[in-house]
Amino acid sequence: MCMLKELVVKNRSYRRFHEEVRIERGTLRQLVELARLSSSGANLQSLKYLLSAEPEKNARIFTTLGWAGYLKDWDGPVERERPSAYIVMLFDSAIAKTCFWDHGIAAQSIMLGAVEQGLGGCMFGNVNRDELRRVLDLDERFEILMVLALGKPKEEVRLVPLPPDGDIRYYRDADGMHYVPKRSLEEIILG
Amino acid sequence: MCMLKELVVKNRSYRRFHEEVRIERGTLRQLVELARLSSSGANLQSLKYLLSAEPEKNARIFTTLGWAGYLKDWDGPVERERPSAYIVMLFDSAIAKTCFWDHGIAAQSIMLGAVEQGLGGCMFGNVNRDELRRVLDLDERFEILMVLALGKPKEEVRLVPLPPDGDIRYYRDADGMHYVPKRSLEEIILG
Repeated sequence: MCMLKELVVKNRSYRRFHEEVRIERGTLRQLVELARLSSSGANLQSLKYLLSAEPEKNARIFTTLGWAGYLKDWDGPVERERPSAYIVMLFDSAIAKTCFWDHGIAAQSIMLGAVEQGLGGCMFGNVNRDELRRVLDLDERFEILMVLALGKPKEEVRLVPLPPDGDIRYYRDADGMHYVPKRSLEEIILG
Repeated sequence: MCMLKELVVKNRSYRRFHEEVRIERGTLRQLVELARLSSSGANLQSLKYLLSAEPEKNARIFTTLGWAGYLKDWDGPVERERPSAYIVMLFDSAIAKTCFWDHGIAAQSIMLGAVEQGLGGCMFGNVNRDELRRVLDLDERFEILMVLALGKPKEEVRLVPLPPDGDIRYYRDADGMHYVPKRSLEEIILG
C-alpha cells in the first residue's frame, strides 16, 4: 500500500506555513470535490463548505482558532507563517439530524488530497464558533463542525512511539522539530 | 490529484462480494496501520480495533448488521456473497470522553487502503450493538463505533447526479447495478 501509506504518513498536522505560497480557490474546490465523492452515512450528504483563500478573510478566520493545545508556550504561527487558505466544514441541519462520521471521512479525503498537492494543514475543532459565525455571517441552520487550515508546510513533524509513561502529548525540540507520539499497532488491535 | 481521486472514486460502499476470496489477518493489520498513522483529535488515539477473517466469526458478526436501509426488498448479501473479513472499530472510554471525528478519519484511511489492494467494503453504523458485544465478548469500557465489512467487490456502483426531486436514496436497476445520487459541488460549496 505504498502510495496511499506515503500520503497518510506525510499527512501530519502542520501549524507553520510558507504563507507567501498562495492557494487558488480552484485548488480548494478540487479538495472539496474529494470530500463530495467520499461516502456519507445513509448517503444524506449533510456537509457544506465555505472557502477562504483571501488574506483579509484568512486573517479574520485565524483569530477564531485555538492552536496546539499541548504547546503551552506557543500562541500559534506568527505572521507570514500562517495558513494560506481555509475550508470551513459545516453541518446543514436542514438536511439531517446528524452527520454520523461524515466529517472525519470528508476531512481525511481533503487533507490527503492537500498532501498529494504538496500542501498540508491542520484540522481545528477548537474554534471560537460564535465569533467565526459572525465572521462568516452564517445562517443558523449551519453548525460549524471544523476548520481545515491549509498551506505549504514550513515545519517537520515526526511520529515517535509513546514514552514509557504513555504520555500522548506532542512536543517540539529546541530546533522546532515537532514530535507526535503514536500508540503501537499492538496496543490498538485487541485480542 | 489523479492518484488519490482514483481511489476516492473507486471507494464506494460495496455490499456483495466474492466471499471465496479470503482476506489475511495480516492485510487487516496493514489497514489498521493506516488508521494508526492518521491524525487524531488532541492526539488522544482512543480508537481500538477487533479483526475477523475467520468464516465462523464472520458469520456471527454478519447477523448483527443492518444492510442497505434504502433497499427495502433486499435483506443483504446471500451466502457466498458476504464479506470475507471485518474490522470492528471501538471507542476506548478509558482513554477519552470523545473520539471527536477520529472514527471517520480512521475509517476513510482503512477503506482507501482496502481499495488500493483491490478490495472494498461498507461502513456500518446500523449494528445490533448488544448482540455484537456478546459475539465479541466485549468489555464495558469499549463502545462499538462502527463495523467495516471488507471483501472482493462483486457489484458495480455508479455515482449519479441527484434527481430533480432531490432524492438522495441509492437504488439498483434490474441488472443489479447500484446507483448513488451525489449532490453537486455547487450545492455543497456555499457563497
